[in-house]
Amino acid sequence: MPFVRTTESFRAGARTMPREYYASPEVFAREQDAIFARSWICVGRERDFTEPGAFQLVDLAGESLIVVRDREGEIRAHYNVCRHRGTRLCTESSGTLSETIQCPYHAWTYRLDGRLIGAPHMTGTPGFSLADYPLHSAAVGRWEGFVFVTLAEHPPPIDQAFAPLHGRFSRFNLPALLPVRRIEYPVAANWKLILQNYSECLHCPTIHPELTTRLPYTSGANDLTEGPFLGGYMEIRAPHQSATMSGRACAIPLGDLPDEDLARAYYYTLFPSMMLSLHPDYAVYYTVAPVSEKASVVTCVWMVHPDAPSKPGYNIADAEEFWDRTNRQDWHICEQSQLGVSSRVYAPGPYSPRESVPAAWDREYLRQMAER
Amino acid sequence: MPFVRTTESFRAGARTMPREYYASPEVFAREQDAIFARSWICVGRERDFTEPGAFQLVDLAGESLIVVRDREGEIRAHYNVCRHRGTRLCTESSGTLSETIQCPYHAWTYRLDGRLIGAPHMTGTPGFSLADYPLHSAAVGRWEGFVFVTLAEHPPPIDQAFAPLHGRFSRFNLPALLPVRRIEYPVAANWKLILQNYSECLHCPTIHPELTTRLPYTSGANDLTEGPFLGGYMEIRAPHQSATMSGRACAIPLGDLPDEDLARAYYYTLFPSMMLSLHPDYAVYYTVAPVSEKASVVTCVWMVHPDAPSKPGYNIADAEEFWDRTNRQDWHICEQSQLGVSSRVYAPGPYSPRESVPAAWDREYLRQMAER
Amino acid sequence: MPFVRTTESFRAGARTMPREYYASPEVFAREQDAIFARSWICVGRERDFTEPGAFQLVDLAGESLIVVRDREGEIRAHYNVCRHRGTRLCTESSGTLSETIQCPYHAWTYRLDGRLIGAPHMTGTPGFSLADYPLHSAAVGRWEGFVFVTLAEHPPPIDQAFAPLHGRFSRFNLPALLPVRRIEYPVAANWKLILQNYSECLHCPTIHPELTTRLPYTSGANDLTEGPFLGGYMEIRAPHQSATMSGRACAIPLGDLPDEDLARAYYYTLFPSMMLSLHPDYAVYYTVAPVSEKASVVTCVWMVHPDAPSKPGYNIADAEEFWDRTNRQDWHICEQSQLGVSSRVYAPGPYSPRESVPAAWDREYLRQMAER
Repeated sequence: MPFVRTTESFRAGARTMPREYYASPEVFAREQDAIFARSWICVGRERDFTEPGAFQLVDLAGESLIVVRDREGEIRAHYNVCRHRGTRLCTESSGTLSETIQCPYHAWTYRLDGRLIGAPHMTGTPGFSLADYPLHSAAVGRWEGFVFVTLAEHPPPIDQAFAPLHGRFSRFNLPALLPVRRIEYPVAANWKLILQNYSECLHCPTIHPELTTRLPYTSGANDLTEGPFLGGYMEIRAPHQSATMSGRACAIPLGDLPDEDLARAYYYTLFPSMMLSLHPDYAVYYTVAPVSEKASVVTCVWMVHPDAPSKPGYNIADAEEFWDRTNRQDWHICEQSQLGVSSRVYAPGPYSPRESVPAAWDREYLRQMAER
Repeated sequence: MPFVRTTESFRAGARTMPREYYASPEVFAREQDAIFARSWICVGRERDFTEPGAFQLVDLAGESLIVVRDREGEIRAHYNVCRHRGTRLCTESSGTLSETIQCPYHAWTYRLDGRLIGAPHMTGTPGFSLADYPLHSAAVGRWEGFVFVTLAEHPPPIDQAFAPLHGRFSRFNLPALLPVRRIEYPVAANWKLILQNYSECLHCPTIHPELTTRLPYTSGANDLTEGPFLGGYMEIRAPHQSATMSGRACAIPLGDLPDEDLARAYYYTLFPSMMLSLHPDYAVYYTVAPVSEKASVVTCVWMVHPDAPSKPGYNIADAEEFWDRTNRQDWHICEQSQLGVSSRVYAPGPYSPRESVPAAWDREYLRQMAER
Repeated sequence: MPFVRTTESFRAGARTMPREYYASPEVFAREQDAIFARSWICVGRERDFTEPGAFQLVDLAGESLIVVRDREGEIRAHYNVCRHRGTRLCTESSGTLSETIQCPYHAWTYRLDGRLIGAPHMTGTPGFSLADYPLHSAAVGRWEGFVFVTLAEHPPPIDQAFAPLHGRFSRFNLPALLPVRRIEYPVAANWKLILQNYSECLHCPTIHPELTTRLPYTSGANDLTEGPFLGGYMEIRAPHQSATMSGRACAIPLGDLPDEDLARAYYYTLFPSMMLSLHPDYAVYYTVAPVSEKASVVTCVWMVHPDAPSKPGYNIADAEEFWDRTNRQDWHICEQSQLGVSSRVYAPGPYSPRESVPAAWDREYLRQMAER
């Protein structure tokens, strides 16, 4: 992979984005339509939907979706809206549905694939046909064991959208990894500040005392430096073996990793709102859900090799505490940025060469906002 | 009375209203002006204002009104706004006023009929006359013992507005009934969803297990099927005698009722926001106060024959629990509808013949919104 | 000083301002720009910033300012916004800064006078100069020991703005007074209602039973009756010596006061949002911070002669309770006015001759809103 030293990809003169991108409800509404209602958005992993009927409710761009594995094994994403009078069909956040989804109001009944099969007192009405009222559905795609949905009516195939990542993470065994921890963080900051924060480590010496000793911020390089997927790696400083509180590995390796990967931590953003951290012994994925122009919820899931928990030395708490502490340091500074960028006097400031990735992220964001 | 089987009054092709009627603050604001600030709105009953000076504060379309019986016995509705610097005159929600209403700020003093009789340091000022500054008032009307007010400047006489109901409920003795229970319910749903829900029983088998055994949803007929007053009756299934938890009558009959009324429960909506339920042994009236496009408060009052409490077998708790339980089932499903109809994909769905009354209610609503 | 009996300065026909000035978010936003972002606003007193590095965070017109005494002894007001990525620099509400202000995100470092002296990884970048990125600052002015700031880019010199008050309060020794009590009051009312309320005592007999016995509302006269500074005095009725619960003086005189001042209480508004009360034995200043069109925060500070606490008879609680009680009575009636003036039917009402000062205050407000 063609790794690039951070500074080489830097475009001189890059500056942060203006105030309204962080403070304007109108920009937020436009983003919801132009980005979150059109992109492929990660809503979990295939293994979260094991058996037919297994479902989760997902909130996306103001919509409630029922993501469910149907009887034929397909994963579906139905809008949680009855075609009769619009009632929410499901209220539990997750669980297992029977053969059908029945509206609790007037008992309209749908198969798990969305087809309407019952509508009391309608079926004899002239001009009414069950076939005209299936549930509205969103497209579903899969990549490396993750499930993505999109509200776009004519979305690009996910394989095409994710082509730049094809095969890049195969050795990390992602589809098989076992989720072992999950935390939701409410953050009083615009979602973009969270993505930008994740994209550079210039702030690490000031903000993250623990992390800095394990992952020197000037180490490593980026291998994805333009476009919707951005990131690279940092070096794990010996004698540390991983990004954990103790510095020791907390689990067996994720896969059959080459030696160089055993001393690297990889960090990528997947536009718009997914972040993926790969360490030798564990992986973490984040999804950032925008709530308003000044509030977000970040969900963070730790994953290990499926055999790891039964092996000697397993101690995921060592990695969990490391990132929980680091995350909270990051969310706090994002919240302080949110307050500051809302000022009348805030104007775009200069990015340093060490912030080439957030600068590239901003370019991708602006390109997509302009295009849609 | 010309009763009509539900299906006969159904207009084929009727559909629910679009999303914005439930989700738009702008539509809500327009409704407040076009409907709630212009219609006759029920604010209680004459017997709530027994003696001169008895008053209640009423919130209507953003306004605070002092509804009070004056010294001459007239019921008045004054805006709770001093003509001097605009201060609220009363803050208690109900009580008894003395001979006058005095502003607590600078002591401007009004008679209960609204006339200004004192204004310190103003009375000698050239050009100032007490007669120019009476309290602003709203029109007051009465029907069957209920008190209505309207913010309209030139309202139609209430007798004309209520002509379709003239004499229709005389046998139920409404002005004399004794209020015995009162509950306020906050509901996270648009007010129209509550009125529509009240207007059909197609949902009863799914939502109301108790009610369905006493009042079969396919029984009965509607006798008011178009216009501002809508509804009809359902049959009380023998051996049940009323809509109570036990199925037994909870009080003596409301009046000298013919035999057929002893096996009927009548339900009417009085546009825009009153609902009236008449059972052989008790009546319930509801008023629905819109709070925002997605929130309302429903007030529910149970009434019985004035002699009922002293008679053997009196057990209003039996009716109260029946409707409290039924009400909460209804408010919950209205809240689920509110969430669903706010979706991007929600589009008007088909009403069934069993929903002819909500379809007619929608027509009346749209007619009044268009006209004003 | 040319004192004028209240009624002589009254302009017949003066009326209160229309509803939108109290109920419209748009007018509020315009005020923030036209008045609060352009006027000299009191943010405390010089003695609140004793040593170099002493700072307070101040919220003004939506901005956070760091008001700090720098190493050279100057008081500065910096926007709390890093020039790099906009992050808030300080989060504590007050304290003492070291030699510098360092951004907690990427360690950009500023001197207390605002100059940027460090920016990691930026300093070698072509085209970047530390000199181009000092903190944004607001102008600072001083009057009678009070510190004022203004967000105006080209503000009038404060001495010119305050010329009408030149020398007027010298005998009260204001710069030297010792602050001894401070209370913050949240008030659910528009800030202008609070200023108007302070500007007349016609309401005193109704609202303030304690105050009325000590300061008869028809006593005294106004000496500033037009323009940004308004007010005058009321007479302290013998045998009372001051505006205290006991009626006795609570401290030694503020300065070498002439006999007539020993029987007077002076009250002034300093446009837009400062109020100043001078009694023989203590002074109180208020600042009113608008939060929204219907909410404000009033900060109230009691001050005495610096020698007072060590003298016999010192009892500031006697004055504190007097005004705390009076303040709460005032805020309550302002909140009732806020509710009333938001009514559809509220229309400007007639000011009486006893409300000549609030009428003049309104004229100044409207003049400044029109001009900017």
